Amino acid sequence: MASWSKAVRRSSSFGWPQTTGFKSRKCNVDRNKGELMLNLGKLHFGGDYNPEQWPREVWKQDIELMQRAGVNLVSLGIFSWAKIERKDGEYHFDWLDEAIELLHQGGIAIDMATATASPPAWLTKAHPDVLPINFDGVRLSHGGRQQYSPASKVYQQKAAALVEQIAKRYGNNPAIEMWHVNNEYGCHSPYCYSEQSRQAFIEWLQKKYASIEELNAAWGTDFWSQRYYDWDELVVPKRTPDGTHPNPGQQMDFKRYSSDAHLELFKMERDIIRKYDQKRPITTNFMSMKFTYAMDYFKWAKEMDFVSTDHYLAQHDPLNHIDLAQQADLTRGFADGKQWLLMEHSTSAVNWQPRNYAKTPGQEFRNSASFVARGSQGSMYFQWRQSQAGSERFHSALVPHAGSDTRVFREVSELGAWLKSNPDVANYPTDQANVAIVYDYEQFWALMQANLPTQDINYAETVAKWYRAMWENGTRVDFVPADASLETLSKYELVLMPLVHMLSEQEERVFHDYVAQGGNLVVSYFTNTADRTLRVKLGGYGGKLVKELAGVYVEEFYPLREGQGALSNGYKIELWSELTRNLSADVIAKFVESDVDGSPALTVKSHGSSKVWYQGTELKLGSQRKFFKSITKELGIESEGGESTEVVRRGPYKFEIDHEKNKVKLRNN
Amino acid sequence: MASWSKAVRRSSSFGWPQTTGFKSRKCNVDRNKGELMLNLGKLHFGGDYNPEQWPREVWKQDIELMQRAGVNLVSLGIFSWAKIERKDGEYHFDWLDEAIELLHQGGIAIDMATATASPPAWLTKAHPDVLPINFDGVRLSHGGRQQYSPASKVYQQKAAALVEQIAKRYGNNPAIEMWHVNNEYGCHSPYCYSEQSRQAFIEWLQKKYASIEELNAAWGTDFWSQRYYDWDELVVPKRTPDGTHPNPGQQMDFKRYSSDAHLELFKMERDIIRKYDQKRPITTNFMSMKFTYAMDYFKWAKEMDFVSTDHYLAQHDPLNHIDLAQQADLTRGFADGKQWLLMEHSTSAVNWQPRNYAKTPGQEFRNSASFVARGSQGSMYFQWRQSQAGSERFHSALVPHAGSDTRVFREVSELGAWLKSNPDVANYPTDQANVAIVYDYEQFWALMQANLPTQDINYAETVAKWYRAMWENGTRVDFVPADASLETLSKYELVLMPLVHMLSEQEERVFHDYVAQGGNLVVSYFTNTADRTLRVKLGGYGGKLVKELAGVYVEEFYPLREGQGALSNGYKIELWSELTRNLSADVIAKFVESDVDGSPALTVKSHGSSKVWYQGTELKLGSQRKFFKSITKELGIESEGGESTEVVRRGPYKFEIDHEKNKVKLRNN
Amino acid sequence: MASWSKAVRRSSSFGWPQTTGFKSRKCNVDRNKGELMLNLGKLHFGGDYNPEQWPREVWKQDIELMQRAGVNLVSLGIFSWAKIERKDGEYHFDWLDEAIELLHQGGIAIDMATATASPPAWLTKAHPDVLPINFDGVRLSHGGRQQYSPASKVYQQKAAALVEQIAKRYGNNPAIEMWHVNNEYGCHSPYCYSEQSRQAFIEWLQKKYASIEELNAAWGTDFWSQRYYDWDELVVPKRTPDGTHPNPGQQMDFKRYSSDAHLELFKMERDIIRKYDQKRPITTNFMSMKFTYAMDYFKWAKEMDFVSTDHYLAQHDPLNHIDLAQQADLTRGFADGKQWLLMEHSTSAVNWQPRNYAKTPGQEFRNSASFVARGSQGSMYFQWRQSQAGSERFHSALVPHAGSDTRVFREVSELGAWLKSNPDVANYPTDQANVAIVYDYEQFWALMQANLPTQDINYAETVAKWYRAMWENGTRVDFVPADASLETLSKYELVLMPLVHMLSEQEERVFHDYVAQGGNLVVSYFTNTADRTLRVKLGGYGGKLVKELAGVYVEEFYPLREGQGALSNGYKIELWSELTRNLSADVIAKFVESDVDGSPALTVKSHGSSKVWYQGTELKLGSQRKFFKSITKELGIESEGGESTEVVRRGPYKFEIDHEKNKVKLRNN
Repeated sequence: MASWSKAVRRSSSFGWPQTTGFKSRKCNVDRNKGELMLNLGKLHFGGDYNPEQWPREVWKQDIELMQRAGVNLVSLGIFSWAKIERKDGEYHFDWLDEAIELLHQGGIAIDMATATASPPAWLTKAHPDVLPINFDGVRLSHGGRQQYSPASKVYQQKAAALVEQIAKRYGNNPAIEMWHVNNEYGCHSPYCYSEQSRQAFIEWLQKKYASIEELNAAWGTDFWSQRYYDWDELVVPKRTPDGTHPNPGQQMDFKRYSSDAHLELFKMERDIIRKYDQKRPITTNFMSMKFTYAMDYFKWAKEMDFVSTDHYLAQHDPLNHIDLAQQADLTRGFADGKQWLLMEHSTSAVNWQPRNYAKTPGQEFRNSASFVARGSQGSMYFQWRQSQAGSERFHSALVPHAGSDTRVFREVSELGAWLKSNPDVANYPTDQANVAIVYDYEQFWALMQANLPTQDINYAETVAKWYRAMWENGTRVDFVPADASLETLSKYELVLMPLVHMLSEQEERVFHDYVAQGGNLVVSYFTNTADRTLRVKLGGYGGKLVKELAGVYVEEFYPLREGQGALSNGYKIELWSELTRNLSADVIAKFVESDVDGSPALTVKSHGSSKVWYQGTELKLGSQRKFFKSITKELGIESEGGESTEVVRRGPYKFEIDHEKNKVKLRNN
Repeated sequence: MASWSKAVRRSSSFGWPQTTGFKSRKCNVDRNKGELMLNLGKLHFGGDYNPEQWPREVWKQDIELMQRAGVNLVSLGIFSWAKIERKDGEYHFDWLDEAIELLHQGGIAIDMATATASPPAWLTKAHPDVLPINFDGVRLSHGGRQQYSPASKVYQQKAAALVEQIAKRYGNNPAIEMWHVNNEYGCHSPYCYSEQSRQAFIEWLQKKYASIEELNAAWGTDFWSQRYYDWDELVVPKRTPDGTHPNPGQQMDFKRYSSDAHLELFKMERDIIRKYDQKRPITTNFMSMKFTYAMDYFKWAKEMDFVSTDHYLAQHDPLNHIDLAQQADLTRGFADGKQWLLMEHSTSAVNWQPRNYAKTPGQEFRNSASFVARGSQGSMYFQWRQSQAGSERFHSALVPHAGSDTRVFREVSELGAWLKSNPDVANYPTDQANVAIVYDYEQFWALMQANLPTQDINYAETVAKWYRAMWENGTRVDFVPADASLETLSKYELVLMPLVHMLSEQEERVFHDYVAQGGNLVVSYFTNTADRTLRVKLGGYGGKLVKELAGVYVEEFYPLREGQGALSNGYKIELWSELTRNLSADVIAKFVESDVDGSPALTVKSHGSSKVWYQGTELKLGSQRKFFKSITKELGIESEGGESTEVVRRGPYKFEIDHEKNKVKLRNN
Repeated sequence: MASWSKAVRRSSSFGWPQTTGFKSRKCNVDRNKGELMLNLGKLHFGGDYNPEQWPREVWKQDIELMQRAGVNLVSLGIFSWAKIERKDGEYHFDWLDEAIELLHQGGIAIDMATATASPPAWLTKAHPDVLPINFDGVRLSHGGRQQYSPASKVYQQKAAALVEQIAKRYGNNPAIEMWHVNNEYGCHSPYCYSEQSRQAFIEWLQKKYASIEELNAAWGTDFWSQRYYDWDELVVPKRTPDGTHPNPGQQMDFKRYSSDAHLELFKMERDIIRKYDQKRPITTNFMSMKFTYAMDYFKWAKEMDFVSTDHYLAQHDPLNHIDLAQQADLTRGFADGKQWLLMEHSTSAVNWQPRNYAKTPGQEFRNSASFVARGSQGSMYFQWRQSQAGSERFHSALVPHAGSDTRVFREVSELGAWLKSNPDVANYPTDQANVAIVYDYEQFWALMQANLPTQDINYAETVAKWYRAMWENGTRVDFVPADASLETLSKYELVLMPLVHMLSEQEERVFHDYVAQGGNLVVSYFTNTADRTLRVKLGGYGGKLVKELAGVYVEEFYPLREGQGALSNGYKIELWSELTRNLSADVIAKFVESDVDGSPALTVKSHGSSKVWYQGTELKLGSQRKFFKSITKELGIESEGGESTEVVRRGPYKFEIDHEKNKVKLRNN
């Protein structure tokens, strides 16, 4: 793999430590911190299995059809709480025992769920404070799913008791290959504004801040007379008077608390399972999707034995295979480059988008191949058999309403056979890229807030545009967190920083060290504008990163009007311009046709063999592609594929997927 | 009447029972179930009369102006509760006695209201639980109207007491021609989410389901862990976590319950009146309008002595006379073909649309003529005299703010004279059509839900398009409910089934029998996809109706992208395509330029002399017209008028209304 | 000043009393009702100063920078409640004493705030009923600002106690030049729907109406059974059933009550300060902005020693200098023509608009010059130093985040020097115009309601269009209230009445007298349609004003469809047409291409030397300009500037501001 070895070679020339590289891990079960990795000798294929929705006679047909389709793993019991625990403390496992036995006999491994994802009606009836309260104070109702507050003590106790029962009963069951804690944490109820949540938020804040005075300083409460003198005065960021919004620091900390509160639920369940099973890995399914933001998955991933995720295509987007690639790469980033598992996606249409377009013939094969190329240990779905009732009855499955004599079942069976015939792929992680994009959920949270220079700042869209520009250029990228270590950054020749609005002093220093050691950066506008409390860094926007590393002085932001602004080199821009002065950089292009004509817009500054590019505007896609192409060319970073084709390697295996021609090639070099 | 006799002739050739036909009823007061029909010897003309809004001196002018305009009926007392009952149990009827006497002396008959439509402030102050609670738990306030929950015991008691007083006092009053219960039930507050409503909903469910287990099966509560073990765990479908919605079956049953809960209020009032008056008919005014859906009027109509309705034009729609015709035909459908009464419409502008365009000269005459042609026993309005204050002060009336020297008053006076000169029309119901459209409020409710294959499915729009295609082709249609009896269906040569998403097994069988006995069907996509609990019928969408009767196997839905898709015969389509296989039909057209090219889109299958057409897509209007034209031509169904002209008969009377030329002709053949 | 003397001349010819004119006041401190005027010998320059947000070392830099920039006034302590009162009754003034002393020593005068604008967390924690309740019953939270209900007794008591402390401590402090009560009353929380608010609303109503029966008559409660029998039955206009709205009269009175309730808070604070300081003037900063409507500033202004206001540009509008001029003129109207003070605007971008465009070079100078030309005694800003944290951190300031070596600081320093060099300007009020526009917040409230002939009626937009037509024609206008005295009206040759929907009988009579005494009127459609209770005046819309003064009979409103309608003289129209008859006017233009072709649309009627124009439609801007041009020409009203240039005089000083060429000229004639 040319580019990887090149990166290693270059890194040594800057005195970077020789890393062992990903390859050394390829055949081992990795036990970071004593945790367990998923099975590497297998590409998994199957999906959520909900036998409780069907009569017993269907179960036997299921096993037979699974075998025909090549299914080797099913997720069992995700929404079974109400079926298992029929009243407080009264558990019914007979039906589940039977399903497990049937699967086991059929040779289908089980991803055993903890069933805590949706509490039963008897529980929320008896304990309404399990139910979450929304921003407007409305207590949400039973009838959908995920109707619990992470701060609810009763929820915590009842969920723990259920998991204890399940783990005790099945902890040694040979049918089980892995554990599936809860489901899509924070998907529907990430934020609860109840009194219990307020108490939990205060406890969380008391751990973070040494004193109420420190909190006042962090939140800037002298603005608008918001100062607190006692912890108990603190509130969750509920609706405030019209045209105002809760304090920005309060909002940020509440989002941090909320991610942590759900993570605590995960850890509670994980630790219970671990008591009864020290052998099988434990995960929970993330939702790596473009607009999903509530859980800080980089932080969560550290608590998983292996990373798994769900992904659903934006069906209206004809280029959704690029988003798929991005989310797969991001998930691999959570997994620190290791293999991961696609736990859910769809065989065809979903049910929850405005228009639920079905997949075209061959599309699902391409999609699955792309996931596997980018590190997934297989292809799992929601769900095995399409539900006859309930909200998701029009969500596709491996077995459609129309049965097995269907396009969908035939296509997934082909896929199952293909996965089965390539087990060795699973032994290799996806090759590392030479370029990394910094991704950080806290930036997402910060840039979602009101009262920014323009409401058009869209973290997800800008990151997606940068990713797409690279993808279409044929340049592979990895994702790294904003608090990446110097060791992590040093694996990459080039690090991209799109809208990394907040950086702590410590984090900022790591990027300086990275450059000092030979790394190259592309820094966008509005990056390093504030510290992690959203306090603006004074004396020229972007702090030292922009003033010293990029050599540009940013004096004032000038959001662009529709149609306004261009660059002197012909690049097309939108949304943003800045009144800047060049301090010590080479100016690549200046703003024209704007209110800041003559201000440098694109610059580069050399630090020995390192270079730092500054991009003080939002480039339109074509121009972003050109800009990145010029940079990767200058750095000698090679590309492969591009336009409509992606080329990805897992060790000796080369995946070549042409999305226009609808073709997948897998070769063993 | 050519086409009617033809239908009779054809029906006999299929062994259908000879029905007596509508004509036999024309001169009789029909007493189905012992109830009373409205006066057949008169075309009614007048409107809501609210003397309480005006000083006594105006009342006398009113009588005089009514006489000049030809008014022969007014609805009295609809919003008089607060004026009649000034504190709990203290009734003041003197002013009403006086108004009734004045009207009676003036020769104006009275449609006597029960005054329960809007409870007084003293009642909701003393009993806040009369007020409805919305989806978000907000208790709605006094200050608008209809501020009561149908489940409120206090409302029920106080309304009953009021009606008792009114019925007792005026039960034998010769001025009264009919009774008007409440007003536009469910117009503003169809759904209440209070604890009392929850209790009433549970009681309703206990009557419907033999056990909680049966309810669980019907609602599919094993999905998402929603299972109930005790009746008291049940909830009304309030707001659930973001991105989720209450259980689909729960939503359906809550809509059914809500329609029934209001119907119970009607029945309660009706039965009180009946104690005191066994001679005059009792009605309540429906709202037959395109987007009104909350009350199941086919079910309600069975409890009325005669059907009355309100109708307001969508003023932005230049073709709103077609919607008027549709709603009039639908109302006649509720009335099972019998005469009915247009209780409210407007002389010119209304006040509640975004832009309240006034009627153009002659328009109101055309509108009224169309209502009468289609079975209304006259033309009634909201309201007699335009209010000087309150929310509806800019709603037109027979007497405008500017007085009687106005365009409006002159035009309505002409209309009054015309109606007076044609009393014999009232003796004939509108002639039956040869074609029926299946209409069903429960389909409306089902297709309003989220999580369908596309959010663009719009029951009201599709039915309106089918109706309009027929109207513009000059083919008259009636409306029948989805649970129509075989006897009802058998009156028609052709039955259209647009988006009849749910059918019970029993209902499905009736359509089979109809075809077996010689009837012809047009079945749309997404019809018979589920049973009445919304459980999907497996093994190919559309169940036996589509697989056996239409001969098509529907495997997977493919909602269309904007601009995507066409048919091989040149018809234009939108919204919907399907992956289908032809089982035993003749293919009329296939999908092209789509993701399912080659799948049959329009088919026909013969069963003896019967034919069943399947339409697996949403045709654009022009193509829908062509498709229907080809079908009616094949079946020999004649048409008359069309384009901008409607031709409708009531026995010997022929109405010919040209909407483009603004002309109305009424001839006695 | 030619046109002013002409007005005086003409007025005498109609027997109007010779007024002393504004000029006589120019050098005096005006003491209407014993109150105090702001300093006339100075143009103020500075802004909100929030030292509590910064460490002590920054304070000294602040003083030095203020001196460099020419700052001579700062508003201090606006959001300092939480910093001053750290628990109930425990006040900490040391830091404030220090800041005041530093400013005083630095020669910077102080506009001393009462700090009541945003109550501290300890207060709302201890007394949640301080917090306002919104329309849906949600109690709004701490974390934004202005989180108090004006009806809260606790808020009233605690605010009074704080003001007492501040006024007692600083009442004689020589550093203080004026007092700044609270801040932008009603900006975020104008309406509170709590039980305390209901009680206060009832008390307000009891003062207004002699009996509950009088209230019933005013609100028209016989409509929809809304009649009240006891005061305690009354409710605040909370959410009512879907599709209904609270009673129109109830809505109007609630808006009146809400403005008065906040005004009572102001008066309470003012009277406390007055106890301790009888020398310095007291004000509160209004928000004269296009879409700000909740406080009735014409009424409020009567309670101020001098009028001050805040104004922020609509940054997306390239012609926002016209709105600036309008709001400045309106503010001068509140001040009855006297000098006033621009208390807040922005040096560059704000933070709360969708896209916060920065100001272009020179723009802020132009803006300030326009404010001063139109009567402001200087140019004040929010805020001195850009906040590092909090919601408004991206709101510009005199000292930006980037410091003093910035475009912004340089430009404001130039402005500071310019203001300092022209102190004599402050001695002259802006010259009176010859034309007045009637402006009235109650019309705004009335026309915001639902259920009007069209939702497109937009009071703010129509007034802005009339103002803009005059501005672009180079014709200056003043603003007068709808309840202006005959004396006030008589100062003007021409009075414009755009959408003056409601007039009491008394008010209507004043306009008749104005015409009788030689005044000229332009009356728009929908003017004088109702009295102040919203009861429609019967017998032809517009009452005597339209029927007798304008000579037109308006029978029915015909809102226009998009693209429909024109005038016979080629003028372009939108939104509105009417079915009218000419009674006694000269018809200038008739409607064509409409549903009311031939109805008079523009008319004029002479009364001796007076003329009354009627405009029965909404003219498009170009046509409105032509119409006004023809009127001012006929009346001999001169114009100056226009298109992109404004010319305004303050006595001997002539401001000429060309917005296209970005030039400001100030000349002393």
